[in-house]
Amino acid sequence: MSKPISFLSDFGHDDEFVGVVHGVLAKLAPESRVIDIGHGTPRGAVRAGALALTRAIQYLPDGVCLAVVDPGVGSERRAIAASTPWGYFVGPDNGVLSPAVAMVGGADQVVSIENPEAMIPSPGETFHGRDVFAPAAALLASGEGNLEDLGPLVADDEVTPLLLPLPELAASSVTGEAWWVDRFGNVQTNISPGDASAAGLVPGDELTVRVGATSHQIRWVSVYSEVEEGELLVHVDSAGLLALAVRGGRADEHVALADGVAVTLEARRSPRAE
Amino acid sequence: MSKPISFLSDFGHDDEFVGVVHGVLAKLAPESRVIDIGHGTPRGAVRAGALALTRAIQYLPDGVCLAVVDPGVGSERRAIAASTPWGYFVGPDNGVLSPAVAMVGGADQVVSIENPEAMIPSPGETFHGRDVFAPAAALLASGEGNLEDLGPLVADDEVTPLLLPLPELAASSVTGEAWWVDRFGNVQTNISPGDASAAGLVPGDELTVRVGATSHQIRWVSVYSEVEEGELLVHVDSAGLLALAVRGGRADEHVALADGVAVTLEARRSPRAE
Amino acid sequence: MSKPISFLSDFGHDDEFVGVVHGVLAKLAPESRVIDIGHGTPRGAVRAGALALTRAIQYLPDGVCLAVVDPGVGSERRAIAASTPWGYFVGPDNGVLSPAVAMVGGADQVVSIENPEAMIPSPGETFHGRDVFAPAAALLASGEGNLEDLGPLVADDEVTPLLLPLPELAASSVTGEAWWVDRFGNVQTNISPGDASAAGLVPGDELTVRVGATSHQIRWVSVYSEVEEGELLVHVDSAGLLALAVRGGRADEHVALADGVAVTLEARRSPRAE
Repeated sequence: MSKPISFLSDFGHDDEFVGVVHGVLAKLAPESRVIDIGHGTPRGAVRAGALALTRAIQYLPDGVCLAVVDPGVGSERRAIAASTPWGYFVGPDNGVLSPAVAMVGGADQVVSIENPEAMIPSPGETFHGRDVFAPAAALLASGEGNLEDLGPLVADDEVTPLLLPLPELAASSVTGEAWWVDRFGNVQTNISPGDASAAGLVPGDELTVRVGATSHQIRWVSVYSEVEEGELLVHVDSAGLLALAVRGGRADEHVALADGVAVTLEARRSPRAE
Repeated sequence: MSKPISFLSDFGHDDEFVGVVHGVLAKLAPESRVIDIGHGTPRGAVRAGALALTRAIQYLPDGVCLAVVDPGVGSERRAIAASTPWGYFVGPDNGVLSPAVAMVGGADQVVSIENPEAMIPSPGETFHGRDVFAPAAALLASGEGNLEDLGPLVADDEVTPLLLPLPELAASSVTGEAWWVDRFGNVQTNISPGDASAAGLVPGDELTVRVGATSHQIRWVSVYSEVEEGELLVHVDSAGLLALAVRGGRADEHVALADGVAVTLEARRSPRAE
Repeated sequence: MSKPISFLSDFGHDDEFVGVVHGVLAKLAPESRVIDIGHGTPRGAVRAGALALTRAIQYLPDGVCLAVVDPGVGSERRAIAASTPWGYFVGPDNGVLSPAVAMVGGADQVVSIENPEAMIPSPGETFHGRDVFAPAAALLASGEGNLEDLGPLVADDEVTPLLLPLPELAASSVTGEAWWVDRFGNVQTNISPGDASAAGLVPGDELTVRVGATSHQIRWVSVYSEVEEGELLVHVDSAGLLALAVRGGRADEHVALADGVAVTLEARRSPRAE
């Protein structure tokens, strides 16, 4: 039976790249449903693509995940396909797949896509989404082939990992970084509620949020409506991480946070507690 | 039999929000076709989303309509589902569904989506598209459940309406407002040909179009080609409302009209008629 | 059996235009898969749309191709449908279909879409994508009708061609033009490797690339990794045409090339060869 294919890329929607990959999938896996996870990852932003995939993966139907964020196309980086408890992953070996693969339980097998018979011949070397990755995803989704048909096995420790920064804990603070500013201006950090808890921070606390030399006093709330319209808040976002938001506004316009910028959350004890 | 799901939101295409909702729908209603009405509604613009839905609804296959423009997520606003002669509507109770529901004949029943078993458990409270609305739409589309499975009935007069401004008629003029500027720079008003007719305006008339202190002399034509390239025109647009356009150009660059700005159409009698 | 429909337009994703066309297709050809080739063609840019279609067509499943880039909507331009060895093409008779039709072997028959029974009645005259083209595409895709049901035959020489500029060859140079700058800043020219070869240029050559009064020394390479990060290169792109690119960067920021700008490639002989 044909499996669904979930597809993420940094192709955007100005050109026909996404449509051409859909065309190849429709030709080679005509029974497979194709779900666009999204194609708005900034150009070549492997980490941003990997994080989007990680947030999405548990909500996607088991099948094949095709992720093409590939600044190294035309270099020596490998094309890989992996089998996991969730299903198959196909993409460049640059770390874009790694966190999502880890989240679903790790790879059982990984192969290097090298078999020319599994590819579409091309005049150029730069559209692997069309010529290498889509045919591989279609082969696995349609059930017409399996991992071994794509190329030789790759040892686990030869697969490129994605190094994600861990938050640093201190006595009454935790320092992490912003790693996603969404369309609504919400700023997700890499700090989990568990990290915050280990630093003594709990929901309901007034926090001092430090970004560079600037500090903000912000409350950790459960729902937006606990603060006034236009006010900053810290909360656990829909992916389970601490995030800054503004009720009815954009947090990124209040706090100078962008992808990769460090942020410290610190307890601000009420006067009576001191 | 599974019903198609038509999906509108203000999620945009930069993030994976739309894709995650598609994933949930594919998991819970695997046989349903999903149609993206569009996801470009400006952030939190309930009226703009409602109007887009109203323009689209008659062209969508009967089934389930999922609309998520939800500036009040995380507040007390209800999540609702309604049955209508067209099919089901699912979304926040903030008016975004109301005009489209009215257009297809009104709601037979409305429920408040409150049953936790019909939702996806989430660490956060801010992605109701994924956790509340998509599961409800999938339940109704797949035929695995019905309205009563989602939550208690809500009385008609407890549903939030959307107040849409009506044009004001005078002896030989009608004053309305712009409520949609499309990608091509065409400016749709809330004035119907019937409103114009009641003010004595008919196709072929030269109109005085007033926006603030500025006036333009514009002809009401049937097709673009009745005016020269680059010239302003008034016509009945594809949704049946009076709109300003420029043949081969953008009306919004000629006339200072944006969503919500007032505009008056007035008869400009030819000298011989005075 | 229902055929897939591949759909290209300049509608963008801000409005509900694409979604409404999908709705009409789903209503009238419920069994047809719909593939979005892309909707990011600049407004009314017939040539850009035609070129995108030409690059995509061989990767799309046989069926119906619906292309709506239509600056002349509301004028006298015809709506046409053509049968070809690949399948059907539907769109305005302004050249947007012509190069793709030629690429798949030319049209067997062309009709002018004039039969009102094959259209959706509309209050306005400006959304032919919804009212004229989508119903025609659906009729052909669903198998419920054929070309003759749409309107009268049109002679081949009455169909509007698209005049594409040919590169000009000189003794040791070739002059063409840029005709696509993609999301990644790569600049595609209308110069094929065969054109370059006829001018004595071969892969591996150092080329002098002239744009206006400015010259750049650029190597013709096979893969990006033959040059350093940030360096300009000429290569055969994924569509088989010579293109300028920058490894890990944007060529359009280094070379003042935009759609339609002339560019000359010239041999730059090494000193030892002179």
